[in-house]
Amino acid sequence: MPALRAAQALRPAIRSLHAASLNSARCFSSASIRMASNKAFIQGEPDAPVLKASIPGPQSQKRIDELSEVFDTRSINMMTDFTKSIGNYISDPDGNYLLDVYAQIASIPVGYNNPALAKAASTPDMVNAIINRPALGNFPSHDYAEILKTGILKVAPKGLNNVFTAMAGSDANETAFKAAFIYRRQLERGGPDVEFTQEELDSAMNNQSPGSSSLSILSFKTAFHGRLFGTLSTTRSKPIHKVDIPAFDWPQATFPKLKYPLDQHAEENAKSEQASLDEVEHLIKTWHIPPAAVIVEPIQSEGGDNHASPNFFRGLRELTKKHNVLLIVDEVQTGVGATGKFWAHDHWNLQDPPDIVTFSKKAQAAGFYYGNPALRPNKPYRQFNTWMGDPVRALLFRAIVGEIERLDLVNHTAKVGDYLFSKLEGLQKKYPEHFKDLRGKGQGTFIAFDNPKRDQFLAKAKEFGINIGGSGASAVRLRPMLTFQEHHADILVDALEKIVKAL
Amino acid sequence: MPALRAAQALRPAIRSLHAASLNSARCFSSASIRMASNKAFIQGEPDAPVLKASIPGPQSQKRIDELSEVFDTRSINMMTDFTKSIGNYISDPDGNYLLDVYAQIASIPVGYNNPALAKAASTPDMVNAIINRPALGNFPSHDYAEILKTGILKVAPKGLNNVFTAMAGSDANETAFKAAFIYRRQLERGGPDVEFTQEELDSAMNNQSPGSSSLSILSFKTAFHGRLFGTLSTTRSKPIHKVDIPAFDWPQATFPKLKYPLDQHAEENAKSEQASLDEVEHLIKTWHIPPAAVIVEPIQSEGGDNHASPNFFRGLRELTKKHNVLLIVDEVQTGVGATGKFWAHDHWNLQDPPDIVTFSKKAQAAGFYYGNPALRPNKPYRQFNTWMGDPVRALLFRAIVGEIERLDLVNHTAKVGDYLFSKLEGLQKKYPEHFKDLRGKGQGTFIAFDNPKRDQFLAKAKEFGINIGGSGASAVRLRPMLTFQEHHADILVDALEKIVKAL
Repeated sequence: MPALRAAQALRPAIRSLHAASLNSARCFSSASIRMASNKAFIQGEPDAPVLKASIPGPQSQKRIDELSEVFDTRSINMMTDFTKSIGNYISDPDGNYLLDVYAQIASIPVGYNNPALAKAASTPDMVNAIINRPALGNFPSHDYAEILKTGILKVAPKGLNNVFTAMAGSDANETAFKAAFIYRRQLERGGPDVEFTQEELDSAMNNQSPGSSSLSILSFKTAFHGRLFGTLSTTRSKPIHKVDIPAFDWPQATFPKLKYPLDQHAEENAKSEQASLDEVEHLIKTWHIPPAAVIVEPIQSEGGDNHASPNFFRGLRELTKKHNVLLIVDEVQTGVGATGKFWAHDHWNLQDPPDIVTFSKKAQAAGFYYGNPALRPNKPYRQFNTWMGDPVRALLFRAIVGEIERLDLVNHTAKVGDYLFSKLEGLQKKYPEHFKDLRGKGQGTFIAFDNPKRDQFLAKAKEFGINIGGSGASAVRLRPMLTFQEHHADILVDALEKIVKAL
Repeated sequence: MPALRAAQALRPAIRSLHAASLNSARCFSSASIRMASNKAFIQGEPDAPVLKASIPGPQSQKRIDELSEVFDTRSINMMTDFTKSIGNYISDPDGNYLLDVYAQIASIPVGYNNPALAKAASTPDMVNAIINRPALGNFPSHDYAEILKTGILKVAPKGLNNVFTAMAGSDANETAFKAAFIYRRQLERGGPDVEFTQEELDSAMNNQSPGSSSLSILSFKTAFHGRLFGTLSTTRSKPIHKVDIPAFDWPQATFPKLKYPLDQHAEENAKSEQASLDEVEHLIKTWHIPPAAVIVEPIQSEGGDNHASPNFFRGLRELTKKHNVLLIVDEVQTGVGATGKFWAHDHWNLQDPPDIVTFSKKAQAAGFYYGNPALRPNKPYRQFNTWMGDPVRALLFRAIVGEIERLDLVNHTAKVGDYLFSKLEGLQKKYPEHFKDLRGKGQGTFIAFDNPKRDQFLAKAKEFGINIGGSGASAVRLRPMLTFQEHHADILVDALEKIVKAL
């Protein structure tokens, strides 16, 4: 490939230009790490990060410039060569390989170029799904039940054996909201068999009540549920996500603010959680547009990796049941194994399951699970769109589930998470100001900490061969894949120490 | 396959049960039609519809029952076997083959199991796109500029050389709305360099103005733009789409009501169009939540195939420019060749292009095109989401464009549309009450007519080997693929006559 040859020709120049970062990278090539990758789940990973050029290097910059002509690239993190990325390593057009603990914003489940997924992507079934995309609501494919049952539904949360498939997290949440509004209005109307009034039908066409319901979704401060108009009205992460966009006047409750380490602040934290529950109840009872549902993330992710205890979530379940308000658990980022359980809400030991659980990201497919048949609207075409999901992604999720089972990746992630967390505790003792509020213990690799120079931290990480992301105002969040192993954790922890030393 | 064997075993029973429909089907197997398909673009199509069982037949019913356990199937039209569907023919698990002029709600562009698409779906590039899905805003793939330029952007509407990629029509429209709101507020603020005020930032977090803007999108009565919360607020097709779902108090103007035949109602129709434009202008000037954009379909599709003249749309472009309101043309259903031009708005001969054109369906990819660089928000992360589109579908659209060019399918569709329309005029003369307001002349195969027993018409069509859809309250809409040929038109017209005779 000409691009590759050009990169090779430029390499000597890059080498001298970026000697500093290259030197810092070389230290990863120790014998012990080189050995470790023999245990890698995915063969072909480098033994350690490889830094051949600055990021962006000349080849990457050329491609960024080219893309910028037609596509907004100002949020670019790095130009990526996915054909060369492998396992836990992300590559770029300049031949760099970074250990990737961000994983396409927490959405790559089992490694780049995973051979089992490549196999699934090469089957006649997949070709069929790509070129003959069904309008699933009208013309489901003869094998869609089987595809669902052996994939998306095989891993359905306990008690939720129905699914409505969607495209991504945002529309998964919006369709869940619609299900909640329809369900609530059916109850208010006296059941699914009660017909709409003419006034409802007419006023709905004018976007007026009673047809357009005066109901809301209650979400939490610092929550993130998406960026479409309904979901953005429940998203409270950052002003830049929301400013200038019209929003519904929906209520928000304060999410518990836990203090760390948890065992030293048990009483305070319990109080914070109770205050949050009290606020939820107050809003349910008093908000001028009554909530049909509460939506909550098991761990607020984009909003800064904010945790709450199982006890809080059990309280929330109890409260929502008491007031006949649905509980929607948004597992778009937490789902599919990263917390050491398949679904993060499995940590809560709920007596009654959530009413709705939404998923996307590492599932690659998207949608919402539900159990109560009354959450199917009383008439067809109320929840409907042309494609209603994507069998390509349903097939891929099935292959992902297969790979998770084959390698026991959920239990694996629980263990590696424990290993990583204890090493991070070591770092925290050494550099307390750089690893503040270390959190995610017992939550697999879903770990975060605050750093006072967070943005520099993230940028600097690339010089040490690590691709890592942030969340909220000051959190560094770890979102490795489920194929992240102890030897990767060693490389990561080693690099984290170097990063904070260089800050 | 066991399913197939079971279907074969059942066949004698079905034959006797459904003798009537089978007889009506057999008449398609005339010699002339059998010959015609030798000219078919896609080899392997049957010469005519094949009816082996009722619809749903026993195999289909079994699979519907199975799917119903986990997925809402009440909007099912027919259970489909996409592996056996070919070209313009849709197949089911009972071995039926129907001539498909509905095409997955107007979203299959170049035939089922098109070999060129199958080839594109089998490449290493496609496998890579499936298994290594990028977060395009942060980590675009090194070849995304090339993928866009040789595909999605190769067919960009004149003057619109930028694209924001999305998942489907609904989020394509919603992100277009967001672009419009951000653009408008930037203008009001005094330009992209003026910073947000603290009040704006704070109030946005509470879903309150001024941060959450008090702006609207103006749409037309009987329009359809999607079913998410923002788009549903602009959708005015049917109450069942809207009832119980909260909506923004956005304005709607009356869409022109053209009378047919057009040449006999020129003056009246011009008046109706002017009245509509006057109403738009009045709403722009007076609506209590000012419109940032007007969104319009070139032909209102879900709402009943409502047309307006190029003159109307030129007036709308003029009016929106005059009032500094963006014009968003929703080409989700009309785009990609079906009207005999690549984009339906190519029929209008606009001096200034629309500000934004949205696309999906037959593109299989989705998003919005724009030309004015100021429609990129002034800061990154204002238009953003995890995936920002899907390279799988971008690659597929490129292959679709290749197939359209290879077979000159846009010009082909213009010609076949003319052929079909003149034959339908013949039917209309014979059965005026059954082919009311025949419309879409000169608009390729994007043709519709009203039928007083529309729902029975659609159901009955299957007995005569045709899969056909409706729109609005009483329209039968033709949405064949771009590979629909004259010999298919002959079969269709023959069947349409039989259907109305049987009503």
